[in-house]
Amino acid sequence: MPIRALVFDAYGTLYDVQSVRGVATELCGDKGEIITQLWRLKQLEYTWLRSLMRSYQDFWLVTRAALEFSLASVGIAPAAALCDRLMSSYLHLDLYEEVLRAVALLGDYKLAILSNGSPTMLDALVNSSAVAGCFADVISVDRVRQFKPEPACYALVEPALGVATAEVLFISSNGFDVAGAKRYGFQVAWVERGGAAPPPENSVVGPAEFYRMIRGRAEQLGYEPDYRVTRLTDLAPLVGR
Amino acid sequence: MPIRALVFDAYGTLYDVQSVRGVATELCGDKGEIITQLWRLKQLEYTWLRSLMRSYQDFWLVTRAALEFSLASVGIAPAAALCDRLMSSYLHLDLYEEVLRAVALLGDYKLAILSNGSPTMLDALVNSSAVAGCFADVISVDRVRQFKPEPACYALVEPALGVATAEVLFISSNGFDVAGAKRYGFQVAWVERGGAAPPPENSVVGPAEFYRMIRGRAEQLGYEPDYRVTRLTDLAPLVGR
Repeated sequence: MPIRALVFDAYGTLYDVQSVRGVATELCGDKGEIITQLWRLKQLEYTWLRSLMRSYQDFWLVTRAALEFSLASVGIAPAAALCDRLMSSYLHLDLYEEVLRAVALLGDYKLAILSNGSPTMLDALVNSSAVAGCFADVISVDRVRQFKPEPACYALVEPALGVATAEVLFISSNGFDVAGAKRYGFQVAWVERGGAAPPPENSVVGPAEFYRMIRGRAEQLGYEPDYRVTRLTDLAPLVGR
Repeated sequence: MPIRALVFDAYGTLYDVQSVRGVATELCGDKGEIITQLWRLKQLEYTWLRSLMRSYQDFWLVTRAALEFSLASVGIAPAAALCDRLMSSYLHLDLYEEVLRAVALLGDYKLAILSNGSPTMLDALVNSSAVAGCFADVISVDRVRQFKPEPACYALVEPALGVATAEVLFISSNGFDVAGAKRYGFQVAWVERGGAAPPPENSVVGPAEFYRMIRGRAEQLGYEPDYRVTRLTDLAPLVGR
């Protein structure tokens, strides 16, 4: 089946969620690393759990709750001023270094984003980054008040872009998102950003390494990606560019 | 509202999922600890993700997939014989030490289990433990082919026991289960088994400690338990026993 549109996940795929570490370390010292990892783990857990509980709250509020959980876990009071500064870092995450080149290589295709982010978060994130204006649509799951990998989220793409599901290449670094998108019916490319190497023998597995072990590998959920790449520029030859 | 039935979660609440550590360490050496923690994290993630993806697989298969993921993560080939031995430990998890006394104290109430476990797993687990025969019903979510915290799972209790939802006290150590049960409409007691203390200053946070931080605290999902206890015997005075 030909590919007529490329749809990207945002957090972890185009934008580096680990780039909050700088602010977290500036504000919380050597607890910054563990806050960074717990925050992302809880953020995703809360999207899944709120979808399951039928208790939707948008990604900004979910991200804030996950931050408060993480700060309290390391013994830091989640004061409003501290949380506000950390949350604002989520509006200015770093683009992965190859994104701009990848988007230029793929510009003949219809490009879009499908993200858990709220519309306000995504507007701020995309518009303040170098790829502002490169996407035909930035689709937020907020339109259906559920989170990925709920099928209703992926179902937003076809009507938004006017491209049949089977003609969409969906690209994500998040294993659960790869499985959910494949289950839904997209062609899927997994950007293997985490790496799957086991930790070195006899090393102490700290939070960053443990996070990588939890999130870096392909998930065993019965749905495999069609393509595996290590960076987004590797997509161009796959689609004939 | 009076309480007419007490419904317990099984894994982590009556039975100690951390008790697989012994076999894991026997078979996998010093990787046993990290396997124990990854396995439980992935097991729960896969229940949530498969529910969200509308791709149900029973808890035995989910637990096996999570084990294979965990072994591969630490560089151990998930050979069938190894997986079989580790999986069998899930059929003989240790009861927490106070469970038998708690059940004796609460015996005037209708007692039941509501668990993610498959019927076969729960039969083996309960019948080989000291509380066999103590429960009016052992309810598996397999009847609805979804996992907690999906409301359909909690909805199994009222027809199975003939007790109104508002007259059920649901007891779990799992924060997501506490939130889901409260959202559904039960009275809820949280057994705080993990502890919420932050890690000691300047300590290296290894996998067991990180797991405790991820799972030990109350979740920030907007639903608070009615009661917090540190062991199940503390339930008796709450319900007038």
